[in-house]
Amino acid sequence: MKNIDVCLSPDLLHLHKINNSIVVVTDIFRATSCMVTGFAYGVKSIIPVASVEECKTLQNMGYVAAAERDAQKVEGFDLDNSPFSYMDERLIGGKIAMTTTNGTLSISKAKTDAVKVIVGAFLNLAAVVNHLKNQPYDVLVLCAGWKGRPNLEDTLFAGAVVDALKDEYFVAEDSAILAMRTYQQAKNDMLGYLANSSHIRRLQGLGINKDISYCLQNDLYDVLPVLRGNELVIH
Amino acid sequence: MKNIDVCLSPDLLHLHKINNSIVVVTDIFRATSCMVTGFAYGVKSIIPVASVEECKTLQNMGYVAAAERDAQKVEGFDLDNSPFSYMDERLIGGKIAMTTTNGTLSISKAKTDAVKVIVGAFLNLAAVVNHLKNQPYDVLVLCAGWKGRPNLEDTLFAGAVVDALKDEYFVAEDSAILAMRTYQQAKNDMLGYLANSSHIRRLQGLGINKDISYCLQNDLYDVLPVLRGNELVIH
Repeated sequence: MKNIDVCLSPDLLHLHKINNSIVVVTDIFRATSCMVTGFAYGVKSIIPVASVEECKTLQNMGYVAAAERDAQKVEGFDLDNSPFSYMDERLIGGKIAMTTTNGTLSISKAKTDAVKVIVGAFLNLAAVVNHLKNQPYDVLVLCAGWKGRPNLEDTLFAGAVVDALKDEYFVAEDSAILAMRTYQQAKNDMLGYLANSSHIRRLQGLGINKDISYCLQNDLYDVLPVLRGNELVIH
Repeated sequence: MKNIDVCLSPDLLHLHKINNSIVVVTDIFRATSCMVTGFAYGVKSIIPVASVEECKTLQNMGYVAAAERDAQKVEGFDLDNSPFSYMDERLIGGKIAMTTTNGTLSISKAKTDAVKVIVGAFLNLAAVVNHLKNQPYDVLVLCAGWKGRPNLEDTLFAGAVVDALKDEYFVAEDSAILAMRTYQQAKNDMLGYLANSSHIRRLQGLGINKDISYCLQNDLYDVLPVLRGNELVIH
């Protein structure tokens, strides 16, 4: 039987063997929610890069560039980290370069060893789950967290994936059980469950409650971003 | 207001500033449960060491030596990692040297920077909580986990401490909220909640169900082990 596991922080990724695994990277607030939204609205590809400098270089080469640090847009870039910025017809068919505090770093960390890296958010939960049901590999859900620390929203998403796949995969490890039970506890009122989370407070301070509610919606889009080489494209 | 936070794995300790914190180290199955039991039964001091070699050196110097790796006693040592081994009148007034897979390593990691390191288990939960209520520092509960991975039982204990102190401390970080809510979800049937955990399965394979039930009992002993220099003694 295939295994499904959860890594609560990229700083714990070294503990996981992922050379037989599909890694689902998630950063609910807001990197992977932005990516899914962008593809749903017609973006052609997204290159996730770890540093602001690399992102700048790609911008100079003609990419639309999105850089976020500490939940805010970095000066001189084209897009911020709100999913609503990705609902823009000027981006249709476009190529985006993106760097964020946590999400793109997690993708960089996973891509060397994993069988495949896909991008997950509540917005494309069913697309992620359906894809995983029909493949032969183990699964690791990698939570981007916040600067190395586990967070509630990514843990909830990881739990949603485990919960949906628990009959087809072996749920062996405590992090996966913890995430699944947390999701089961919270699923009927995720916004309420997250009310006191550190990142919700950080984002509310920036006045983006609209983003929060948006990112917690299930299955808005049937798109599955997957990493091919250094580029995310639709599967 | 003082802060209380939780570190779900010693591999994440580098993310926490603990120079104004009391660190509560917990390793429910079974290192810190053994320590609390030992002190309750009259042990005078316990030196936690990180390696089997250091433990052997102290044994040769006359200490009663306890070494566990992968949940089993290492050959040539005096005590295994069952709390029932510490209910022995030959240990009254004795000095013990101890090394375990996760628990003693966590103590070693925390001791350099923390204001104070104390040892917590369900067996002395009230003693830990009462001590923390009456001091001016921040608190970090450090879960020993299993070889760097978070586990359910230590997370539950961390949540029990946060839950008991939530009116007197600021619960700011997601790991602390996650642990507290997990404890609230599980507290009426911790054994049931843990039924599928990885370490429970590991221990059950070794036939030590008795240890598991024992370690999940609250407030059996009013003792608080605290690190003084390199030695744990009763506060």
